[in-house]
Amino acid sequence: MKIQRQISQKAYHADHSFMGSYQKLIKDTVIPYQYSVLKDEAEGAEKSHVIANFINAGKALRGEDAGDGYYGMVFQDSDLAKWIEAAAYSLTSFPDPELERTADEAIGLVAAAQDEDGYLNTYYTIKDRDKRYTNLLEGHELYCSGHMMEAACAYYEATGKDALLEVMEKNMEHIYDYFITQGHEGYPGHPEIELALMKLYRVTGNEHAKKLAEHFINVRGVDPHFYEKEAKKRDWTVWNANPSDYNYMQAGAPVRKQTRATGHAVRAVYLLTGMADAASEDEDASLLAACERLWDNITKKRIYVTGGIGSTFMGEAFSTDYDLPNDTAYCETCASIGLMFFASRMLENQVRGEYGDVMERAFYNTVLAGMSLDGKRFFYVNPLECAPGISGISPTHRHVLTTRPGWHTCACCPPNAARLISSIGKYAYGENESTAFCHLFAGGHVEFGNGLTLDCETEYPYGFQVKYTILKGNGGLALRIPGWSKTHSLLLNGATANASMKEGYAYIQVRTGDVIELLLDDQPYRIYASSRVPRLTGCTAIGRGPLIYCFEGVDNGGDVMGLSLKREGVLTVGPAAPGLPPSTGTLLAEALKAEAMNGLYSQKPPAQTPVTATAIPYYAWCNRGENQMRVWMPTA
Amino acid sequence: MKIQRQISQKAYHADHSFMGSYQKLIKDTVIPYQYSVLKDEAEGAEKSHVIANFINAGKALRGEDAGDGYYGMVFQDSDLAKWIEAAAYSLTSFPDPELERTADEAIGLVAAAQDEDGYLNTYYTIKDRDKRYTNLLEGHELYCSGHMMEAACAYYEATGKDALLEVMEKNMEHIYDYFITQGHEGYPGHPEIELALMKLYRVTGNEHAKKLAEHFINVRGVDPHFYEKEAKKRDWTVWNANPSDYNYMQAGAPVRKQTRATGHAVRAVYLLTGMADAASEDEDASLLAACERLWDNITKKRIYVTGGIGSTFMGEAFSTDYDLPNDTAYCETCASIGLMFFASRMLENQVRGEYGDVMERAFYNTVLAGMSLDGKRFFYVNPLECAPGISGISPTHRHVLTTRPGWHTCACCPPNAARLISSIGKYAYGENESTAFCHLFAGGHVEFGNGLTLDCETEYPYGFQVKYTILKGNGGLALRIPGWSKTHSLLLNGATANASMKEGYAYIQVRTGDVIELLLDDQPYRIYASSRVPRLTGCTAIGRGPLIYCFEGVDNGGDVMGLSLKREGVLTVGPAAPGLPPSTGTLLAEALKAEAMNGLYSQKPPAQTPVTATAIPYYAWCNRGENQMRVWMPTA
Repeated sequence: MKIQRQISQKAYHADHSFMGSYQKLIKDTVIPYQYSVLKDEAEGAEKSHVIANFINAGKALRGEDAGDGYYGMVFQDSDLAKWIEAAAYSLTSFPDPELERTADEAIGLVAAAQDEDGYLNTYYTIKDRDKRYTNLLEGHELYCSGHMMEAACAYYEATGKDALLEVMEKNMEHIYDYFITQGHEGYPGHPEIELALMKLYRVTGNEHAKKLAEHFINVRGVDPHFYEKEAKKRDWTVWNANPSDYNYMQAGAPVRKQTRATGHAVRAVYLLTGMADAASEDEDASLLAACERLWDNITKKRIYVTGGIGSTFMGEAFSTDYDLPNDTAYCETCASIGLMFFASRMLENQVRGEYGDVMERAFYNTVLAGMSLDGKRFFYVNPLECAPGISGISPTHRHVLTTRPGWHTCACCPPNAARLISSIGKYAYGENESTAFCHLFAGGHVEFGNGLTLDCETEYPYGFQVKYTILKGNGGLALRIPGWSKTHSLLLNGATANASMKEGYAYIQVRTGDVIELLLDDQPYRIYASSRVPRLTGCTAIGRGPLIYCFEGVDNGGDVMGLSLKREGVLTVGPAAPGLPPSTGTLLAEALKAEAMNGLYSQKPPAQTPVTATAIPYYAWCNRGENQMRVWMPTA
Repeated sequence: MKIQRQISQKAYHADHSFMGSYQKLIKDTVIPYQYSVLKDEAEGAEKSHVIANFINAGKALRGEDAGDGYYGMVFQDSDLAKWIEAAAYSLTSFPDPELERTADEAIGLVAAAQDEDGYLNTYYTIKDRDKRYTNLLEGHELYCSGHMMEAACAYYEATGKDALLEVMEKNMEHIYDYFITQGHEGYPGHPEIELALMKLYRVTGNEHAKKLAEHFINVRGVDPHFYEKEAKKRDWTVWNANPSDYNYMQAGAPVRKQTRATGHAVRAVYLLTGMADAASEDEDASLLAACERLWDNITKKRIYVTGGIGSTFMGEAFSTDYDLPNDTAYCETCASIGLMFFASRMLENQVRGEYGDVMERAFYNTVLAGMSLDGKRFFYVNPLECAPGISGISPTHRHVLTTRPGWHTCACCPPNAARLISSIGKYAYGENESTAFCHLFAGGHVEFGNGLTLDCETEYPYGFQVKYTILKGNGGLALRIPGWSKTHSLLLNGATANASMKEGYAYIQVRTGDVIELLLDDQPYRIYASSRVPRLTGCTAIGRGPLIYCFEGVDNGGDVMGLSLKREGVLTVGPAAPGLPPSTGTLLAEALKAEAMNGLYSQKPPAQTPVTATAIPYYAWCNRGENQMRVWMPTA
């Protein structure tokens, strides 16, 4: 048995807690809405055409007229894949014959769009079958295959139906044949298939899947000039990507020699997830060392306090160490989702609190901020500051939208959030033969593989008591003690538990009937940044539990830019802000508000008035119209 | 007589004051060095080839082999023009037969490169004469002509020699014939010729020059689609400029209807200078109103405290109101030079202190910062913060160099600074029939057109007493009282002068033998920014006189990012910093220094130690190697 693994999808059932309500939102709103988008039936949303693409590809393969052909980004297929994956996960919590029938139909379309030889991609099948695998730099075929493999695994896990799994195992064999048996050069421009192949291997046991994943990991960057050579061989391009920008696609050096997280942030964390999978599967020390090195670079030098990564819009990419602008931050929702994948896989290599801490920070802040509270609108970019008039308008702020759109031309983030949230149990709980792991605090019912069954009750992230009742079984229970919690206490049946602490986890032995209560620090706290981050000097952020809070105009007289937090001021918990769900906490901070100044500059300091400033959780921002917003506040 | 005009070039002779020492630096170092660059004889500098371009164009016109042809930017000609202009100005203060001979030779090359019909541009003459005027969007022919017209006026003014003036009057007639007589559509992609034509008009009295300037001003933006139509007619491009980006070249609306300063900042202020020229020449109220509106937009919403403008590197352009990032600031040296041109021309329309204040702020800070103290190295970009490790490296900071290079591929700024400094008397002093105006405080000897002659003695910008001795004549004397000076006193022959104040100027009557002493505020001051500028909230800058100060690593233990200025702390004048000229002042500020933090974020506030932080004038930064630098400091 490995160190520990994610629990299976069916092992966790959320209750009516925070996690459960988000899963219900995904089921009730996001999944149906997104399917209507994929079918181009959602009013006001960007055209998707992905369902039509699969239908048309099937027609093309049968020699029929391909209708209105292909439309969309080159990776449009992946939107349907992520939807199927989310639907699969959701079915385990919320059985729904109609949804299952819809998914089965979609899977039928996918199967019909697969070529006889196993190849699957509607862009190439409709547009030009001769271009297959000739543009790994931009083509996203392996990326789309990867997402569909993940969907296949999820649907099989959820329903036991293996139609899609068969399709994707056949597709995997086709790719294996091309790259391994036939020995064609190359590796995916956008990593994703590596982690998907590892999932496929774990579900099917097919060694080809694992070997192919390892192949793509091992050849990456060995010849950094591969994409240049590839580009010379073809006379077409998708969007003129620069084949010499090796670091953009993490191909500047073999992965084991890379020391800094570079380039497109989503690509980087997807690749790292696959690497961490392979490291734990093979107990590959050099691969794990590379994962740790890049983890450290990301989480110690290149991450926002909200768990956002990829600070520059120029390439949706990692910038350089300590370059963390608030107002022009990119912080793609998908990048933080990918960071959670990576963190979860690092936990499968080594159980360390820092992995869970980062996973939690990313989830409760950037990932959830990617979606409106009603589940209908989505941010791709998650800035830490928004100033209407500049945000979305200045040339360096065009990507920073001031309100969430309903859908995006490049629609990677919304379905990615849906599949993550509906499978959150896998990230919250882990297991090995002897021990059950609680990485996140997710209310609900969990049946671990070793028979241990428990109920978890908590008001987290607004309540800081987490109560576990062991319903059945006995064995080890490991609870992550969050790094943000300055104090904690752990009770076993009402008495202080005899727990052993190791690398941020409390380990105890439990048996049927035991009640374990974890009490975490409920005090709001201030956060300070290293002066190595020039943009954060003199500033303070505030948080409570895993939540980072932000100040929004609507709660603060329309203006948060004039506010400074008093250095030693009182910080208290307040009632929900008007217009937000009653459960949504606020923090109230003693602050000073500067009076408006005529002109830009003055030798006269602006008069400052003491005020109580109201902060809401960052994930809940921008649910009440266009607004100023700020996470890091000047300190008065 | 108009409101007032710049004095003539020969009217001012600097003494050994600050201005004089800069003029000497230009004469001794910058002009010879730049000529060696233009001839490609400067070691380590980027190749210029501009002299060779003129030689080769002459050959091409004579039907000879054009040697190694053309090299450089499409506007390379203008580098020689600006050098001739600077040399001309310098000759009036520092007669130098060898420099004059060199300039005469260069002028000979220019004359030989002029086509029979008056056309002049080496790029098109060498490369393809049929492409003349077919790409006003990118082609820079009118821009280069404009600069050479300015050089011709300057050289005539300085030496009385009219060879270049004849060449450029002929060139002007060629352009007049093409655009006015023949009626071809279009206006320059990069404004400059407008202001140059107004100079040519004032020197020659040729009405065609004025009419052509007014034509280019009046047709601009009337058909914003002109560049798109032009682009459709040709099959070539210089650098794929977008013809639909109207605002980039100030062509989104007729100039009289424009309300915001948009696009490429240098283009904007060059255009505005020509507009202000035409407004004062014609007493054109609607044109002046447009100038005032755009002046207000720039100086009340889009300017840095250093007088830098054009805050975004994306297009070297104006961004949007209140978007003034310190670390990614563009603040091109040429843009602040152009802003001085504009301010000086606004003073020719209305004598108001704000014009002189902005001109002074731009000169003493951004313009001078563009050049190293030894006159050998130049900044194109003038950030208000530099963090080695991020600056120059992060994708959004690549333009922010941490040290001045010797020359630039696009070498507009160094010769622009040279011509500005060597003609600074025109900006410092103005005149009409009855009154002598002192806009800037420039030590030296001035003979105004009405016979009034004075000596000005001052240690400005480090001393705050300005003493004027009237050597000859009588009449009005108008002294600008800087906006930064909270107090002032004005003495006439030792007694309080009976001055009348009007719009920031003190007006008195003087006669031969009078001694006027102006005492300005010598106290260091703090500057605060409007909270409408998100990037400056919680920050303080410091200044003394016209100088804005900055904190550099070398004076502050290598780290300025950990420094916060104490809100009510003491601010004193200190001795020169090690490695800077003894005359260079410093300011010492009570500050707190944060200790380094492990990792990025912490709930524990970093310990802060009281320190005395040392600030140097912003213009003097980066003369002691690569360094952290910051103008706006967090306030503790």
